[in-house]
Amino acid sequence: MSEQIGELLPPPRLMLTPGPSCVDPRVYRALATPLVGHLDPWFTTMMDDVQVLLRRVFRTENRLTFPISASGSGGIEAAVVNPLEEGDEAIVCINGWFSERMAIIAERTAAKVHRIEAPYGRPVDPEDVRRVGRGKKVKFVGLAHGETSTGVIQRLDDYRKVADELGALLVVDAVATLAGVPLDVDRQRIDICFSGAQKAISAPPGTAPITVNARTEEVLRGRKSKVQSWYFDLTTTMNYWGKERTYHHTPPVSLIFALREALRLVLEEGLEARWERHRHNQQALVAGLEAMGLEFFVPNPADRLITVTAVRVPKGIEDLKVRRQLLDEFNIEIAGGFGPIKGQIWRVGLMGFSSQFNNVLLFLAAFEKVLLDQGFHVSAGAGVAAAVRASLKPQSVAIGERK
Amino acid sequence: MSEQIGELLPPPRLMLTPGPSCVDPRVYRALATPLVGHLDPWFTTMMDDVQVLLRRVFRTENRLTFPISASGSGGIEAAVVNPLEEGDEAIVCINGWFSERMAIIAERTAAKVHRIEAPYGRPVDPEDVRRVGRGKKVKFVGLAHGETSTGVIQRLDDYRKVADELGALLVVDAVATLAGVPLDVDRQRIDICFSGAQKAISAPPGTAPITVNARTEEVLRGRKSKVQSWYFDLTTTMNYWGKERTYHHTPPVSLIFALREALRLVLEEGLEARWERHRHNQQALVAGLEAMGLEFFVPNPADRLITVTAVRVPKGIEDLKVRRQLLDEFNIEIAGGFGPIKGQIWRVGLMGFSSQFNNVLLFLAAFEKVLLDQGFHVSAGAGVAAAVRASLKPQSVAIGERK
Repeated sequence: MSEQIGELLPPPRLMLTPGPSCVDPRVYRALATPLVGHLDPWFTTMMDDVQVLLRRVFRTENRLTFPISASGSGGIEAAVVNPLEEGDEAIVCINGWFSERMAIIAERTAAKVHRIEAPYGRPVDPEDVRRVGRGKKVKFVGLAHGETSTGVIQRLDDYRKVADELGALLVVDAVATLAGVPLDVDRQRIDICFSGAQKAISAPPGTAPITVNARTEEVLRGRKSKVQSWYFDLTTTMNYWGKERTYHHTPPVSLIFALREALRLVLEEGLEARWERHRHNQQALVAGLEAMGLEFFVPNPADRLITVTAVRVPKGIEDLKVRRQLLDEFNIEIAGGFGPIKGQIWRVGLMGFSSQFNNVLLFLAAFEKVLLDQGFHVSAGAGVAAAVRASLKPQSVAIGERK
Repeated sequence: MSEQIGELLPPPRLMLTPGPSCVDPRVYRALATPLVGHLDPWFTTMMDDVQVLLRRVFRTENRLTFPISASGSGGIEAAVVNPLEEGDEAIVCINGWFSERMAIIAERTAAKVHRIEAPYGRPVDPEDVRRVGRGKKVKFVGLAHGETSTGVIQRLDDYRKVADELGALLVVDAVATLAGVPLDVDRQRIDICFSGAQKAISAPPGTAPITVNARTEEVLRGRKSKVQSWYFDLTTTMNYWGKERTYHHTPPVSLIFALREALRLVLEEGLEARWERHRHNQQALVAGLEAMGLEFFVPNPADRLITVTAVRVPKGIEDLKVRRQLLDEFNIEIAGGFGPIKGQIWRVGLMGFSSQFNNVLLFLAAFEKVLLDQGFHVSAGAGVAAAVRASLKPQSVAIGERK
């Protein structure tokens, strides 16, 4: 009966996408560690470790810091449906697919949602937020720190300032930035911040770390109605991840094992060293792509996300053919564009375990071969040469150099 | 900085709980298989395998059959929030913690919810459903096939009959039954059926298989409002798991690898053989517990769930002390009671890879030792002897006897 469906034999891919990233062997080992029960006293004590590690990575003292049992999009839902209820007004800054997702989810609550849009490839102007919010009782200002779909980073301090003026919570999607790009939840006074495990943390997908400060806890306690999602209700989930460890739902034990190990790796490397590694490898990538004659999707270099680099698909070249050949010939996966920019951009992710100088060199060499095959002229070796030059000072940082 | 948090070293537990169950080594190997991306053509093709396998295990031809990226409780939420909206009436049959959860989630929708309750330990009377539903336009009759919190099974055909009379969808929580107890989604005409991976399927927790028939798809297409949860919205998720494979959210790739392997194991054994193994081992357990002088929580033997057996904590014995000693001395985990029956029952799960005659014998021997230590009189060897006698005919079925 099941004869047709054989052994699991996936190809050995190098994932240079905006997630999932490649995963350190130590994390796979943790992932495959035989399970214990989610109410086992050993497990409920081990949950403390995960919370301590997450607080260090988020740079926060927030009590309510834990991994949600869902993908990063589940993180968005939790961040949105918990604070918002009938009578509230929310501002969502939209400059791509994932920040728009935040608005779409907010619009499924009873709150009134104001969309503030920027063209894809640019940050949202904080002045627009100020203008729209003026005179309104805004409870929530939401945005993506790094917009994965376009490769744009936004300067959180500017939005924090406006949110302060409006008296609003600042809600930040750090799915593409946490552990890859400087972020300091407490110093930057982010009220709700969430991420995904499968990006710069480089754990397998399926958990979404979130942290919520005391001010937000107060807001949650003051809700007049029940949170519309039972699964993502922080007011009850926090009893399981809080001191009480009261059963809520069965968490993905194996993924939490893996997340714990991935967080240990982040802290063994050190957050600053990790940010620097991401910056360094991305600069080499950018130098290589530029030397190959490719055009960046984000016009202003200061707006470019370190973890995801978007380049335009050159005229006359077919997006899918290039990506397919990279996969088939080199087992390298990069991503395309979503929605309105589908077919127009490629996105190269260098996050966590995937952010290695070795990968940059291999990718540029393979990409050159594929682009030549597909009819785009690249001068031989230009990308790799430029990446090597860009990496000369300071020295490149090899992964695995752990103390 | 992270010095204090060392290597992941969980104790090697034998989980005889209502989930997570122990996991076959083949499933751990699949779990730790290096990731591929969720939009990789290899992965989107492999998703077909998972859907084919799930259809066989659910015994359905339903197109919309896939694992939700969440725990079993996420399955409840998906099953509830998708069909229900303002103006609808729903009946939820409550005879324990998890069927009550279905009602609690339904009450967070705009639908009117009728709770029909039975005492813990008993099934809900289908006649009560008929009586309450009469004259109403009921859209949804929901219940737990196996109520994990009390160890009660309910006869689906009785509720199907009433739901037919009312013109309602039959929505079945099969978290504790799928792959362990006879269930046939198409023959029994269940409109929405969901389960959890970590029970009788014996994959790690974190995915909730669901199947939805054409009639329900029609209901979803006819909704007047958006589903209140974006994450659990089947009308959009089905585009990723449908022919289009349109990106929705990043699924937990590793857990899907593991689920695929666990489903292969289910079908290699054969569903009927698996049901029989579960029945056989539970009968041995029941014989052993009875011989030890323990009292069953579910008075009517015909109402007892094969996968989860609930016994009363004897007078004068402390629930937690017994469970703690079982863990500390034998690395065996069983569960206690939730809510109103906290401290009053023990629940022994024999599901999937945990349902082995070896485990029954070991558990009964260890349990005897612990109960004696805790002051409950058991005549020496009575439990094990009774279990062995109960297993004599037909022959016990050892796991691992795969063709």
